Amino acid sequence: MGSLKLALLCGVLLCLLVQVSLAAKVRHHKWAVEYLFWSPDCVEHVVMGINGQFPGPTIRATAGDTIVVELTNKLNTEGVVIHWHGIRQLGTPWADGTASISQCAINPGDTFIYRFKVDRPGTYFYHGHYGMQRSAGLYGSLIVDLAEGKKEPFHYDGELNLLLSDWWHQSVHEQEVGLSSNPFRWINESQSLLINGRGQYNCSLAAKYSNSSSVPECKLRGSEQCAPQILHVERNKTYRLRIASTTALASLNLAIGGHKLVVVEADGNYVQPFAVDDMDIYSGESYSVLLRTDQDPTKNYWLSVGVRGREPKTPQGLTILNYKPTSASHLPPIPPPVTPRWNDTDHSKAFTNKTRALMGSPKPPTTSHRRIVLLNTQNKFDGFTKWAINNVSLVLPSTPYLGSMKLGLKGTYNHASPPEKYDESYDVMNPPVNPNANQGNGVYVFDLNSTVDVILQNANTLTTGVSEIHPWHLHGHDFWVLGYGDGKFKEADVKKFNLKNPPLKNTAVIFPYGWTALRFVADNPGVWAFHCHIEPHLHMGMGVVFAEGVKKVGRIPSSALACGLTARMVAN
Amino acid sequence: MGSLKLALLCGVLLCLLVQVSLAAKVRHHKWAVEYLFWSPDCVEHVVMGINGQFPGPTIRATAGDTIVVELTNKLNTEGVVIHWHGIRQLGTPWADGTASISQCAINPGDTFIYRFKVDRPGTYFYHGHYGMQRSAGLYGSLIVDLAEGKKEPFHYDGELNLLLSDWWHQSVHEQEVGLSSNPFRWINESQSLLINGRGQYNCSLAAKYSNSSSVPECKLRGSEQCAPQILHVERNKTYRLRIASTTALASLNLAIGGHKLVVVEADGNYVQPFAVDDMDIYSGESYSVLLRTDQDPTKNYWLSVGVRGREPKTPQGLTILNYKPTSASHLPPIPPPVTPRWNDTDHSKAFTNKTRALMGSPKPPTTSHRRIVLLNTQNKFDGFTKWAINNVSLVLPSTPYLGSMKLGLKGTYNHASPPEKYDESYDVMNPPVNPNANQGNGVYVFDLNSTVDVILQNANTLTTGVSEIHPWHLHGHDFWVLGYGDGKFKEADVKKFNLKNPPLKNTAVIFPYGWTALRFVADNPGVWAFHCHIEPHLHMGMGVVFAEGVKKVGRIPSSALACGLTARMVAN
Repeated sequence: MGSLKLALLCGVLLCLLVQVSLAAKVRHHKWAVEYLFWSPDCVEHVVMGINGQFPGPTIRATAGDTIVVELTNKLNTEGVVIHWHGIRQLGTPWADGTASISQCAINPGDTFIYRFKVDRPGTYFYHGHYGMQRSAGLYGSLIVDLAEGKKEPFHYDGELNLLLSDWWHQSVHEQEVGLSSNPFRWINESQSLLINGRGQYNCSLAAKYSNSSSVPECKLRGSEQCAPQILHVERNKTYRLRIASTTALASLNLAIGGHKLVVVEADGNYVQPFAVDDMDIYSGESYSVLLRTDQDPTKNYWLSVGVRGREPKTPQGLTILNYKPTSASHLPPIPPPVTPRWNDTDHSKAFTNKTRALMGSPKPPTTSHRRIVLLNTQNKFDGFTKWAINNVSLVLPSTPYLGSMKLGLKGTYNHASPPEKYDESYDVMNPPVNPNANQGNGVYVFDLNSTVDVILQNANTLTTGVSEIHPWHLHGHDFWVLGYGDGKFKEADVKKFNLKNPPLKNTAVIFPYGWTALRFVADNPGVWAFHCHIEPHLHMGMGVVFAEGVKKVGRIPSSALACGLTARMVAN
Repeated sequence: MGSLKLALLCGVLLCLLVQVSLAAKVRHHKWAVEYLFWSPDCVEHVVMGINGQFPGPTIRATAGDTIVVELTNKLNTEGVVIHWHGIRQLGTPWADGTASISQCAINPGDTFIYRFKVDRPGTYFYHGHYGMQRSAGLYGSLIVDLAEGKKEPFHYDGELNLLLSDWWHQSVHEQEVGLSSNPFRWINESQSLLINGRGQYNCSLAAKYSNSSSVPECKLRGSEQCAPQILHVERNKTYRLRIASTTALASLNLAIGGHKLVVVEADGNYVQPFAVDDMDIYSGESYSVLLRTDQDPTKNYWLSVGVRGREPKTPQGLTILNYKPTSASHLPPIPPPVTPRWNDTDHSKAFTNKTRALMGSPKPPTTSHRRIVLLNTQNKFDGFTKWAINNVSLVLPSTPYLGSMKLGLKGTYNHASPPEKYDESYDVMNPPVNPNANQGNGVYVFDLNSTVDVILQNANTLTTGVSEIHPWHLHGHDFWVLGYGDGKFKEADVKKFNLKNPPLKNTAVIFPYGWTALRFVADNPGVWAFHCHIEPHLHMGMGVVFAEGVKKVGRIPSSALACGLTARMVAN
């Protein structure tokens, strides 16, 4: 190579390097997790907060950035991890933040450094992934903007960020004991729904519309921890509402009085825009919707969030859409939007079926290499109530899989592959004939870069006539949602798969007595949780573990291995 | 050596081996720690139990036995350890069960094997030593009988075992958050006192004696978790009451209506028998007292336990001494013994000063190699309320000392020795002029086999006119209690030391505004906690760390090292 050519090449490289360094930033965060006294719904309890805040700080980054979170555990006796929900952790599976799967829980007093790239723009969030620490309040928003110079396929003038959650007055420690007791004690419905960590339990913002005055009108100055975060808007603008649900249990429906919602993004992927009056959002999902402020600006409007899929014993979560310069204290003239009837499943299906990938989105491979069918059942194990997948209720091992599998350890988990399907004779429309399940911790190991179909098959619970909603979340990947169906999935249903414009998501619901078909490419070396995002369901065993290409995983930070047999092996 | 001699020697050795193996047993226990719903005082809450029991199972062994406890952590997100209170762990410092000091906390799902010899007979107990897990209910009795063929220096016909504790309705997690909050939230007085894990909160066994009927009579069938454990005795016998206090906060006084108590053992050491009508027992202490059943056998008698040293807002703990064959349901004709006035410190001092070593007990060295004076103060650190020793409030490191020191790691704790004395001008009779303390985790390192004097110096708290009781407990050793005094310890007080028959103990109280002088021989290679046994006080920094001969410590089990820098160092 001539010296001129070399000089030119170096010049180009230098230029590229400068461009990259200008665009991609490393965003450092120092976080301490600790318990705080807090009043999320005007009643004081203990929450798990970060840096003295609940919810935790919002992370904002640009696609291509590297996020570094130095997470110090300031709890007294509990470990902690944080999962970055929707971030695929390409090349950094040890930063996925799942205790027992991707890393050892961070011990009290210790610091773990999460370092990962946010490769794609979108609306994400983060949360605890150990025990029921998400329910305890360990969550926050993670928003990734488009790389500089790139354009969204839609226009908007401003943004509003809504992180939705549900809140119990019983501590998660007690909830966990109840779930693991015989007789079983269910956590029941939450006391409150929170919007950005704010709800109202002992009063209502909308009491004045109610004939029954069972709950008094809230008397809030606005500075309370439970005062609603008012959504201030200007007239005739378009706002992007970034909405994510990190509920422990509730499936939600959101509506804004007098306004249409145009859905444009789901789980960090663009969708064909569609307009609705109200939208469903399941735990683990995130959406962007466009809101046009085209209504009478002398009035304010309710934003309401209500429970779907379970008999709603929890009052709506409320806040106000405030048209500036109208005073935010002017209550809207009409009551908040009524949440669709909790068991109007058709309404939910109609919404979910509208979600299609935006033209130009990556298409799924037309065929798959392997199909696994996962039957979701409620069961008993040794008298305890559990959830099981193909009759196996997941119990996570004390040595995390990622280290175990990379190091080739034996005896840390069951090396036999868990069942790929269920007994054809199983009647999904009725309670199990034999309610007893097994416990297990086997791994579905996929060939690297193979295409996998997963059929999630719902069934009747232990109670006659009951089948519940389960939003399933996959770590480390997006999947295409190829279709939904009622009853038992049949081979013939393959023909109905949508291969044209299936949405790419990381969380998909299975409807009562129905099935959901997913396809994904196992192209991310690591070990990945795939589970019902209802936290008490996962706690009761409703999940499986996927792995691919673990031998290709790079050097795992030793602090992620410092527990169980991975620690002991290296320590000996 | 001739072959005959060799054969004879071998014969003798064999014979010795057989004798040893006949006498000394290995006692295996498999324990699982988990939370349980329980009603210790007739109100259901969550307790930390073992094998489904609260309190945990009683360990009974014979001097010389080896106890093996395979402890499995069945908590969801919390680590756990168990300290064997009063067992010196000669040669097994890693089995002392102190998180951050002797071992890494056992992670959820993991099992740690405690294996240690009980070298001396006596009345002991065990308890959690991580966060405030003792308060959560993690405790039980540990009783070591005399080796076969040996005789106690007193006679008794039967035994009764009483483990005393206090119980809060607020969870320890909330208590911990309150203690670590600014403004400070104190845990306040306990709801109940428990005798063998049983108390009565919403009713009283002794309501009928009371003129005020604020609390109803208990209606208990006897099978309830909160029903008192009746002490069944026969007439004209001598019973050995083994009494231990594992209270989180309360100093106690115990009395039995109409009966004298003859104290014969304290903290596993014989004392010169002395008779009292009532006895004090501080958290961390254990006693044996002889009870002669010489009263009218047609009646029953109250055993009462009440709070000393703090304004008693907690009702007495009660149970019944039942003379067989009188029915246990016959309430005693007279009310329970009245606990001495809470602030009658002279009464307490009188009791404590009666405790003298039994003739023939090991005597202290007449001089010491080193003296450290430890000033006990309540302080502020960065606005938080703390306790400090010589102005240092203890914050335990995340890497346990034992492994750190054995392996010679740097950066795991402060290698500078903490202060050996306090500023002479400090006024112990008034609140501190400068209330701000430092935080630290330095270690007092003693020469192996040296004799150490420790002067515990009490002081006024942050509140004018208040000085509190603190029972200090030493791990890994007994100490001789050389004396108690009022006000500031002075050099001249050395002359008053009792070197003739000072009692050997592992826990000793400092009285309000007083000092207590201890002497011990640093002859047990390891790292050892020395701390106020009031759990919230320790949590607020009221402790120090001692070490001696750590280089002579044997091979530490790797599972005790699998955390912090000890794990990372060996993992790299």
